[in-house]
Amino acid sequence: MAFINKLDLVFDNYFMSDKPLILVTNDDGIFSPGIKHLVEIAKQFGEVVVVAPDKPQSGMGHAITINSTLRLEKTNYHKTTIELACNGTPVDCVKMAVNNILKKRPDLVVSGINHGSNSSINVIYSGTMSAAIEGALEGSPSIGFSLCDYALEADFESSTQHLKKIIEFALKNKMPKGVCYNVNIPKLRTEDIKGIKFVRQAKANWVERFDERKDPYGRSYFWLTGEFVNFEPEATDTDEYALSQGYISVVPTQVDLTAHQHLMEVKNKL
Amino acid sequence: MAFINKLDLVFDNYFMSDKPLILVTNDDGIFSPGIKHLVEIAKQFGEVVVVAPDKPQSGMGHAITINSTLRLEKTNYHKTTIELACNGTPVDCVKMAVNNILKKRPDLVVSGINHGSNSSINVIYSGTMSAAIEGALEGSPSIGFSLCDYALEADFESSTQHLKKIIEFALKNKMPKGVCYNVNIPKLRTEDIKGIKFVRQAKANWVERFDERKDPYGRSYFWLTGEFVNFEPEATDTDEYALSQGYISVVPTQVDLTAHQHLMEVKNKL
Repeated sequence: MAFINKLDLVFDNYFMSDKPLILVTNDDGIFSPGIKHLVEIAKQFGEVVVVAPDKPQSGMGHAITINSTLRLEKTNYHKTTIELACNGTPVDCVKMAVNNILKKRPDLVVSGINHGSNSSINVIYSGTMSAAIEGALEGSPSIGFSLCDYALEADFESSTQHLKKIIEFALKNKMPKGVCYNVNIPKLRTEDIKGIKFVRQAKANWVERFDERKDPYGRSYFWLTGEFVNFEPEATDTDEYALSQGYISVVPTQVDLTAHQHLMEVKNKL
Repeated sequence: MAFINKLDLVFDNYFMSDKPLILVTNDDGIFSPGIKHLVEIAKQFGEVVVVAPDKPQSGMGHAITINSTLRLEKTNYHKTTIELACNGTPVDCVKMAVNNILKKRPDLVVSGINHGSNSSINVIYSGTMSAAIEGALEGSPSIGFSLCDYALEADFESSTQHLKKIIEFALKNKMPKGVCYNVNIPKLRTEDIKGIKFVRQAKANWVERFDERKDPYGRSYFWLTGEFVNFEPEATDTDEYALSQGYISVVPTQVDLTAHQHLMEVKNKL
């Protein structure tokens, strides 16, 4: 890898085609198996550009780099027109790609495939989904993909046909500005995946437990661990339910965090 | 400062009172002027516990520490019953306080006062607001406070009476589970603040510009900069509008990111 000195260099053989421009990123790092698989799928739909973190960035949420600087390094791992490893967060990667590298807005931003679930409340902690959300904020249709299997040797092949169907749908039926899709894939063999369901984000949370240990100097340190709790296990229109039934869940996602109902209740009370 | 070896030590003189338990955190770091001011206000309403980052964590969004460990150090800066500096993110601080330090759920979580605006889309990048959101997810009424002035010597005094009114309101009128308040304060003198308005999050975004420079070795690095763009400057029910008119804006905030309207449109299309 070599540091990029003149970004223009990367434009050399750029945009020879009029195929859709697809930006691929992730949060597990540019060399992880999940993004490798997603790039291969994306290549079947358009001109692929990869701008992804140079190291794992799980749990980074919508973090951006404002007190430090960003670097880009060229890689040649995915054999795409442009591929760059960035030392920043997943959101930095999307901002960098859209505003500093690409000459036109991507027709699609895809993020993942994440090694692990990003269903329900996980959307807010997820670097994968934050990259997709940022893509949508930047004005591109965007999809975050996550496989409910944390293993590095997870089977990303089993859902390939379904993921292609979702990408095809997104390219054809433009989602509204600011909306992206949060796609979660159950850990199942191809023949056991029942299909794809559009659903809503389940109400859920993590109940944390901090694992306290002693370092060699006798001082305490803590590992964040926790247990996932679905607050509405009986609801059948959620991502958690769809996944539990063997479906791939797709939650249309946007960042209006306004609690509209409560707003109406308190509107003139202060 | 000394590393915490036995967390029980901090419980020594803990809960002598039956006043409301108030957790204070922020993203600018435990020694910043904004949190100092918020702690002083919080003390007037209850028993205050401070668990805040040991260094600035601006722009961290909802990041959590999962690939590294967390440490706590006792401080005595705020003269509260418990105060701990944590090496993690704002969200880590809230998780740590609620699940590992406190023996009961806080009656209120307050975060800030942030040095700089967290209105509209900034909510998703903001460590201050992510801490408040995490407080709400953990089941406590929570408020994030931000002053639209980035200066370290900003005037936090001018809005004190208004902030007390908002805290009083939150303690009396419990917000629904999972909802918190995003409070932004215009940079104005006391006499110029017109009042407090409950409003919705404005649709807005940042248009980024990457400032490219050369390091002493001739290699490029980038600073993320940008310009804020309000997509609906004519709307009068948004936080941006309220602030522009001299009001303190309060957006009831929750993390259902589901794009419900689009979900209805695409529901059975795959």
